[in-house]
Amino acid sequence: MVQASDFAFSGLHIPGNTSNAVGSRVTPVAVTQIPGLNTLGISMVRIDYAPWGINSLHTHPRATEILTVIEGSLEVGFVTSNPENRHITKIIKKGDVFVFPVGLIHYQRNIGYGNAVAIAALSSQNPGVITIANTIFGSKPDINTDLLAKAFQVDKSVVWQLQTKF
Amino acid sequence: MVQASDFAFSGLHIPGNTSNAVGSRVTPVAVTQIPGLNTLGISMVRIDYAPWGINSLHTHPRATEILTVIEGSLEVGFVTSNPENRHITKIIKKGDVFVFPVGLIHYQRNIGYGNAVAIAALSSQNPGVITIANTIFGSKPDINTDLLAKAFQVDKSVVWQLQTKF
Amino acid sequence: MVQASDFAFSGLHIPGNTSNAVGSRVTPVAVTQIPGLNTLGISMVRIDYAPWGINSLHTHPRATEILTVIEGSLEVGFVTSNPENRHITKIIKKGDVFVFPVGLIHYQRNIGYGNAVAIAALSSQNPGVITIANTIFGSKPDINTDLLAKAFQVDKSVVWQLQTKF
Amino acid sequence: MVQASDFAFSGLHIPGNTSNAVGSRVTPVAVTQIPGLNTLGISMVRIDYAPWGINSLHTHPRATEILTVIEGSLEVGFVTSNPENRHITKIIKKGDVFVFPVGLIHYQRNIGYGNAVAIAALSSQNPGVITIANTIFGSKPDINTDLLAKAFQVDKSVVWQLQTKF
Amino acid sequence: MVQASDFAFSGLHIPGNTSNAVGSRVTPVAVTQIPGLNTLGISMVRIDYAPWGINSLHTHPRATEILTVIEGSLEVGFVTSNPENRHITKIIKKGDVFVFPVGLIHYQRNIGYGNAVAIAALSSQNPGVITIANTIFGSKPDINTDLLAKAFQVDKSVVWQLQTKF
Amino acid sequence: MVQASDFAFSGLHIPGNTSNAVGSRVTPVAVTQIPGLNTLGISMVRIDYAPWGINSLHTHPRATEILTVIEGSLEVGFVTSNPENRHITKIIKKGDVFVFPVGLIHYQRNIGYGNAVAIAALSSQNPGVITIANTIFGSKPDINTDLLAKAFQVDKSVVWQLQTKF
Repeated sequence: MVQASDFAFSGLHIPGNTSNAVGSRVTPVAVTQIPGLNTLGISMVRIDYAPWGINSLHTHPRATEILTVIEGSLEVGFVTSNPENRHITKIIKKGDVFVFPVGLIHYQRNIGYGNAVAIAALSSQNPGVITIANTIFGSKPDINTDLLAKAFQVDKSVVWQLQTKF
Repeated sequence: MVQASDFAFSGLHIPGNTSNAVGSRVTPVAVTQIPGLNTLGISMVRIDYAPWGINSLHTHPRATEILTVIEGSLEVGFVTSNPENRHITKIIKKGDVFVFPVGLIHYQRNIGYGNAVAIAALSSQNPGVITIANTIFGSKPDINTDLLAKAFQVDKSVVWQLQTKF
Repeated sequence: MVQASDFAFSGLHIPGNTSNAVGSRVTPVAVTQIPGLNTLGISMVRIDYAPWGINSLHTHPRATEILTVIEGSLEVGFVTSNPENRHITKIIKKGDVFVFPVGLIHYQRNIGYGNAVAIAALSSQNPGVITIANTIFGSKPDINTDLLAKAFQVDKSVVWQLQTKF
Repeated sequence: MVQASDFAFSGLHIPGNTSNAVGSRVTPVAVTQIPGLNTLGISMVRIDYAPWGINSLHTHPRATEILTVIEGSLEVGFVTSNPENRHITKIIKKGDVFVFPVGLIHYQRNIGYGNAVAIAALSSQNPGVITIANTIFGSKPDINTDLLAKAFQVDKSVVWQLQTKF
Repeated sequence: MVQASDFAFSGLHIPGNTSNAVGSRVTPVAVTQIPGLNTLGISMVRIDYAPWGINSLHTHPRATEILTVIEGSLEVGFVTSNPENRHITKIIKKGDVFVFPVGLIHYQRNIGYGNAVAIAALSSQNPGVITIANTIFGSKPDINTDLLAKAFQVDKSVVWQLQTKF
Repeated sequence: MVQASDFAFSGLHIPGNTSNAVGSRVTPVAVTQIPGLNTLGISMVRIDYAPWGINSLHTHPRATEILTVIEGSLEVGFVTSNPENRHITKIIKKGDVFVFPVGLIHYQRNIGYGNAVAIAALSSQNPGVITIANTIFGSKPDINTDLLAKAFQVDKSVVWQLQTKF
């Protein structure tokens, strides 16, 4: 039977722990957290940023994202697909809203000396997240080193250096 | 050409004016405010509530809504379709998240002596809003009084009273 | 194995019993009645109206409706979403067809001294029905009386009167 | 501006002229007849059958169909896709309802000595109709005779005979 | 757990056996062959044609098809829906690409003295195939002979002749 | 009026020029090349690979891809989303088929001393291509160097080195 608890989640007021390499933490509220979201096509996240922290380059394979700043100021951006690869970027502050279209690589960066907080929503109950660096240099098992060297046009030693970080 | 301004909106930090009959104000950020949302299937709103203010009974014909409380405490609820008409309701406070499934009649009510604020997202770039009272008793032109009296099982005088308010 | 009985239903020639408060009866033929409709996105209903009977104000959260009059004459209408709340209405008679767009509040009323009959189809195998009066004044449990009084801008005594009817 | 006439059509009470080779006539009410149906995913038809008349073998490339008999008795059927090619068939009479799943070849046949009438609805505002015989033997220009002879495993003379009829 | 074998299939390099009545063979790679295709909306086929062989008149109830010739030359065509029934046809050779829109009846014919090969893709993981001749004259059980005679405007003896072939 | 040329394209037999940094060339056949593909949800590409050439790490924001090898042998792979980042990889040769799910980062690499050729299809008439290296290190204007250094956990000098290549 339908119950209120199937449609509710508690905890978005708690700041995420941002003491990690990129200085940010994403707290998701998707179908895993709220079973009642199943098939309803929407979900939400809170993002905390340490000073100069980034929500690293990533895509959502199944969702567009709309984000509003609750505290602080962010540089946000996405890059359009081939062949233009245009970098669309903007400084947004408390009360501003920005959209990242489905499947495009995007990021946010805290550009202030204090913490920043954003609330974002995604057009899927299960949007998925693909963090570019983790996916490419931290996959299990590794992607072939020769292939990565050719893809990024660098020596294999640079690839090895990158692979040790993820 | 794609421009950052097509994907951005400013102003969700400004409290909405809640000195009206219901004591609430919705500030929408949909495709009208952000042209880049076109076909992307998502939008956002800020809702301000005066003490004991309500976001009156309404539906979105084309969207599910996910809402989080930024400040204060809210009673939220929706009613399931015929024949059950179950009223699913919950008290939610800062940091809580609640979902209103597409097309169902729902509401929020500030249950505290201070202001309350919520941020919500909707699974359409153009979700539509149908406020029940305005639609039924304030349509232009009026719906037939006999019909309304029969629909709500009351005297026509009660219907007239209701129609003067909207 | 696929069988003809999974795609068939019998009984739409039988007039529905309209001796109730609103003077109408809806006989649905949806996925519950015809299992083969699953995922196919359509269903059908027969609606019977006593003289001056109404098919009360309601919405279908997941379907547009197309209706044709088989017998008698009907006043039909729907109201557009905020902020216009335009009431679109028309008298239709035997052989006329009318459309109620998805999610909008609509109704039919028999405007003659004899019975009326309509056949309608809906763009979902499971369209759902939300009868406004039942949902708002007859939900289980009740919606808070203060909230309803504020939503409809009336005294709580009027709300109590309405709640006793559903 | 939205107008009632955009959502209305008149004329489904008028019997279609069935004095043709197959003894049936389809009167459509789709987006061409009701502009307000645009994007709403539904349409309606009336079908008249002379005694022993058929609504010949056809498919709708973009819609499932649900049909109810208003007058008379019909043999209805559809055939499932390869490799089973199962023929699902049933005799239906006044008040019975039957479903033809999207894209499958189907038909109706009046199996009585009087006229028959059906009302059907389709899950698209623009369902399309492909009458098999007309498409294959009456296309403009003709499909190659050798190809048709091989497709139906008959002499070319039989193909020519068929092509002269459409 | 996700495994490479769920996303792979082997065997499209093997020519299909075309020693049958129509002189062609379709080798499908859909969700039955690759479980990982589930919900992903695409599939592939290889088609082999003996000299003058045909891929007989058929439709896909749930998919558009895009085809490229790998070897040989083909006459390809589809017929538009009622009332135009326009026959769109073209000779295509190695390296040419052609599109058959969803639900329309279409075919290919090898117009050379050597074998021909095509690779095609379909916009569904489970497109379905309805071969017109098999469906109409080879269904189990048979479609009524009188109905078929009327549908194709021929004597019942011609229908019987056709039914014995499928 | 519908014409055969709206549904046709010529040229997939011509090998793409692979004398570039990655040793591969993609020849697309999408809605830009075939106007009739509009809204039909499918497109095709030919991919040529020089010996050891790669089709570099990329995603399609709006399409799943199904690929078959026409000539040579390929290492193919994709990486699943966070948090697993599983690398699904396989060696495929002439006649093998492989699927890359929508939005996931994937690649192909020619693992032989001769040329390789593949034909692939995508579940959109306009799938889009996001080549990771070009998007991140070759966007116009550049993405902030500090952000990229933090995203990939390397010195800014490594970022500068990468940015000069794209």
